[in-house]
Amino acid sequence: MQLIDGKKISEIIKLEIAGEIKKIISSGGEQPHLAAILVGHDGGSESYVAHKISDCEQVGMKSTLIRFEDTVTEAELLKAIEKLNNDHDVTGFIVQLPLPKHINEQKVIEAIDFRKDVDGFHPVNVGRTVIGLPAFVSATPAGIMELLKRYNIETSGKHCVVLGRSNIVGRPVSILMSQKSKPGDATVSVCHSRSKNLKELCATADIIIAALGSPEFVTADMVKEGAVVIDVGTTRVVSSETKSGFKLKGDVKFDEVALKCSYITPVPGGIGPMTRVSLLLNTLKAAKKDIFK
Amino acid sequence: MQLIDGKKISEIIKLEIAGEIKKIISSGGEQPHLAAILVGHDGGSESYVAHKISDCEQVGMKSTLIRFEDTVTEAELLKAIEKLNNDHDVTGFIVQLPLPKHINEQKVIEAIDFRKDVDGFHPVNVGRTVIGLPAFVSATPAGIMELLKRYNIETSGKHCVVLGRSNIVGRPVSILMSQKSKPGDATVSVCHSRSKNLKELCATADIIIAALGSPEFVTADMVKEGAVVIDVGTTRVVSSETKSGFKLKGDVKFDEVALKCSYITPVPGGIGPMTRVSLLLNTLKAAKKDIFK
Repeated sequence: MQLIDGKKISEIIKLEIAGEIKKIISSGGEQPHLAAILVGHDGGSESYVAHKISDCEQVGMKSTLIRFEDTVTEAELLKAIEKLNNDHDVTGFIVQLPLPKHINEQKVIEAIDFRKDVDGFHPVNVGRTVIGLPAFVSATPAGIMELLKRYNIETSGKHCVVLGRSNIVGRPVSILMSQKSKPGDATVSVCHSRSKNLKELCATADIIIAALGSPEFVTADMVKEGAVVIDVGTTRVVSSETKSGFKLKGDVKFDEVALKCSYITPVPGGIGPMTRVSLLLNTLKAAKKDIFK
Repeated sequence: MQLIDGKKISEIIKLEIAGEIKKIISSGGEQPHLAAILVGHDGGSESYVAHKISDCEQVGMKSTLIRFEDTVTEAELLKAIEKLNNDHDVTGFIVQLPLPKHINEQKVIEAIDFRKDVDGFHPVNVGRTVIGLPAFVSATPAGIMELLKRYNIETSGKHCVVLGRSNIVGRPVSILMSQKSKPGDATVSVCHSRSKNLKELCATADIIIAALGSPEFVTADMVKEGAVVIDVGTTRVVSSETKSGFKLKGDVKFDEVALKCSYITPVPGGIGPMTRVSLLLNTLKAAKKDIFK
């Protein structure tokens, strides 16, 4: 069994990004600039955004954090988005989700100029991804594909079972894995809460991508000898083993599944860091106008 | 075995549409108006467009055919699209594909105002379909879903194998079938030319949707007793049995597969007529502003 070290790969990619940014600046280009809108003070969101800002610093990217209290109106938020859309200094930006209930999340996402939508949530980017056109692919699926590529894991003709059909992970990664591309070209089965044949399908899979958010859902009996297992789950569970009193748990029962795998991602240190670095990659692509001219 | 009669259902839906259009007009609304751009004189395209126009007449919808020779420039075509985008009398329109090679098909599709894109090919409509937002769904997948609904075929928790990953059939229908909806909620496997386990997967499927364009590809040994088989294939093959010298062949070896099925669509008379009526349904939705306000 080989551990897929997302932490290590993400550090390598960050060095690559830093190098590219240096080149852009030294050749007279503008420093890429990622902006983030954060509404309220949710613990998870605060920490995600703080990571994004520190990632920017690490690679030499400019970042701006725009904060609103959770009493902000939808109109105020839309106005802030409009301003970022028109700000030539901002390369790309994100609105950290979730938003307070009185704000229509979908309306907010669609208000973002798709050419600056480095989270890849805008329908134009989702649609272009599906059609196979250049697009900002959302961070977690992009991170998974990048890891498969860096580890040279064969996907063509393989049976890939995706557990979960969410708009931000399961759905897009299932599409990417079955597209005519490398990595890709896999036979892809999408399973979810309503699936009756989930365990049987899993047991036949060459590659399992678990994105259910259900701690230790995937057990050894569901995994074929030699399978590749990608664990996207990161559920915070109470734990007496850590100082914080919490522990991150993946969707895969790691200890028993690892014994059967050819490759497996750990939690933490697998997909998480790759998700973070994918946002930087998208922002770099926006700066280089790789996706939209 | 029950035959899924797409022809009959499409006639029923046309009557429903005709009724709705009468209501719209009698209550002072504008008559829905479908426009079609046809470039060149390809036999298939000519006949598809002629059908679309006669379908419009049948339900009391206004239609306009705009013809260009295949020497038309991309710029001229884009100008015609712009005109239709801004023509308040036109409810929705399509550009019949394929286009001559000197024209960038994707550019043409993206030039169509997504609010008039009744073919559902624009990235905004594709993206919104994937996210689960109201959207114009392209005609063939929409027709398949409508048939499953009208025949009350249970899809929730079933294993659906989709053969083919094209942007106009396989991909969108695989997404719709696995979405949290009715019909939908199926476990969906997408197979294609690179799939190695296609036959084995098929043989476990409760529902098979064949959209490969490979005549009689699906044989009895690939079908489970009692499965539902939807045949999207329509390949014109030379035949001594017909006057025209051609015959439409589906992707399914009908005679032997039909013996094992619970439900099966014939070719012709299955998905074809449903595809045609779906375009009318989309145009009606556009007229009623059901999708976009």
